[in-house]
Amino acid sequence: MSIVNRQWHLQARPKGLLVPGDLQLAEAPVPALAEGQALARVRYLSMDPTMRMWMADVQLYMPPVALGDVMRSFGFAEIVESRHPQYQKGDKIIGLTGLQDYVLIDASAKSQFQKIPPVPFVSDTAFLGVLGITGITAYFGMMDIAKPQKGETLVVSAAAGATGSIAGQIGKIHGCRVIGIAGGEDKCKWLTQDLGFDAAVDYKRPDWKEALATATPKGIDINYENVGGEIMHTVLSRMNLHGRVVLCGLISGYTKEDPALASFSNVLLKRLRVQGFIVLDYADRYVEAATQLGKWKVFGKLKDRETLLEGLEKVPDAINMLFTGGNTGKLIVKL
Amino acid sequence: MSIVNRQWHLQARPKGLLVPGDLQLAEAPVPALAEGQALARVRYLSMDPTMRMWMADVQLYMPPVALGDVMRSFGFAEIVESRHPQYQKGDKIIGLTGLQDYVLIDASAKSQFQKIPPVPFVSDTAFLGVLGITGITAYFGMMDIAKPQKGETLVVSAAAGATGSIAGQIGKIHGCRVIGIAGGEDKCKWLTQDLGFDAAVDYKRPDWKEALATATPKGIDINYENVGGEIMHTVLSRMNLHGRVVLCGLISGYTKEDPALASFSNVLLKRLRVQGFIVLDYADRYVEAATQLGKWKVFGKLKDRETLLEGLEKVPDAINMLFTGGNTGKLIVKL
Repeated sequence: MSIVNRQWHLQARPKGLLVPGDLQLAEAPVPALAEGQALARVRYLSMDPTMRMWMADVQLYMPPVALGDVMRSFGFAEIVESRHPQYQKGDKIIGLTGLQDYVLIDASAKSQFQKIPPVPFVSDTAFLGVLGITGITAYFGMMDIAKPQKGETLVVSAAAGATGSIAGQIGKIHGCRVIGIAGGEDKCKWLTQDLGFDAAVDYKRPDWKEALATATPKGIDINYENVGGEIMHTVLSRMNLHGRVVLCGLISGYTKEDPALASFSNVLLKRLRVQGFIVLDYADRYVEAATQLGKWKVFGKLKDRETLLEGLEKVPDAINMLFTGGNTGKLIVKL
Repeated sequence: MSIVNRQWHLQARPKGLLVPGDLQLAEAPVPALAEGQALARVRYLSMDPTMRMWMADVQLYMPPVALGDVMRSFGFAEIVESRHPQYQKGDKIIGLTGLQDYVLIDASAKSQFQKIPPVPFVSDTAFLGVLGITGITAYFGMMDIAKPQKGETLVVSAAAGATGSIAGQIGKIHGCRVIGIAGGEDKCKWLTQDLGFDAAVDYKRPDWKEALATATPKGIDINYENVGGEIMHTVLSRMNLHGRVVLCGLISGYTKEDPALASFSNVLLKRLRVQGFIVLDYADRYVEAATQLGKWKVFGKLKDRETLLEGLEKVPDAINMLFTGGNTGKLIVKL
């Protein structure tokens, strides 16, 4: 075989946006197929923000791409030759093709692909978008995490992006008031005029925070977050009690160092659940708690200590003591 | 009646720690009881970090204390006189007594108190600590949110505090490896020697981050967070996949402005649930998602748009386009 496979290799880990040389195009011959292998021609490459994370030297939800390796990416490909029992010439597949013209398929975990059945009226590229990884992301983020209820207010950032645009529409399907945050008038018009969003906020306008406030008169119940940084901080400041934040992306932080984002990056990448919590919400169950705590205490499983100050006049000092490390255990003022 | 009631009034909203004059001690006469009222002598005042938040002019989970009002606090009191059908002289109660010698009880919502039954071997003050609001806080934070599993690693910050010390012990009761973060050798010794914590990390030592790493060789599954700031950021950086963060307090931020903490304050005060999310976790349910998305698309409920670039050589520009707002909808490179 004398087919040439052009491949983008990761040669350097970018600091911000990619600069020439971070990815380098090289050519490699396509080897003759061994038994159990198939060769697919890549037709479409999916461009996803997460690719930028795969370029960093950090163990995330997938190992980083090694320097010198073909850069990882999702793609749509078509089998052009097969000695693999499960693939025939002409089969269409999606999966991690990598940034190259051809992808070799064998039994390794690296080449796990999904066959695409022919579906009428659905383009091949839809399997990378609305029916592909980005649409599926929006689906689970909304259905499994946000669980939208009729009448709730949903705010989606990067709303004109592949995932955000689907997430917002899923909110509309479930009867939410949906506000998209996007950059520029064209995108905002697309959201409201074509996709049926109730409002769109153009974050490139200086008054975008006021516009967000105007568009969310009842506050925000669900934040489908793709951006992070100032946009997320502003949305969080308008959240209602017991709201849900689907932390799906933090693209504002992928191309620059932002220490304030580091913790939210951990929440995202490690799929942490952070639950704000005020005990007053449990007022009707205090007796249950006190009863169990009392049992543990009586049976010696719980020990406590008190720091006791005497006299009402000690109160201001006592309050400050809480923040300067003065007390061990419960701090009490005895009158 | 000529009883004098000494009361701490909130006169100014503190900026950092309290300074003289923020709270002012004043005397007020105790009025004669009307029918339906009772008078209680406050015996113990509970000092809680949340009091510092009640002093700020922010609508939180409770309204802020108005300037000039008696400062809000939890306390333990004893009925000394009663014309109230539900209280008799000698009854012991806990609730929001406020910072004062006497509290008047009537039918108003402000004076909702809970009667304390006499329990052998349990001191009155325990009803403000281990069996009171701080113990109950630890109970629900651990049992309802953290849901500790045997063998998991739990890290508690402000671990020698009233809530943290109970939260850690509840972790031990459930078979967790428990590490407490506290300030100073004495507190750390108390945690490990008296309370049975597996390790304690003294954040006042310069090598505390290394000590935390050494104490959590398998990473961290649960963070019971009371402090925020650098301590929380460090703990989050060691969390394991799918970990849980009980955001119970952010005392590092109560006495200073910290913009990086503002979003976490919103999460805490509004009891938001922030869920990090990577779609690869749902790989075995992709077909379910794609099927539903396909139906919505076919029935016109979902619209999508693609931004298409042509040629493998366009890839680096395409990746950057994701972060500079160049695309609307799904970005795809056609080969």
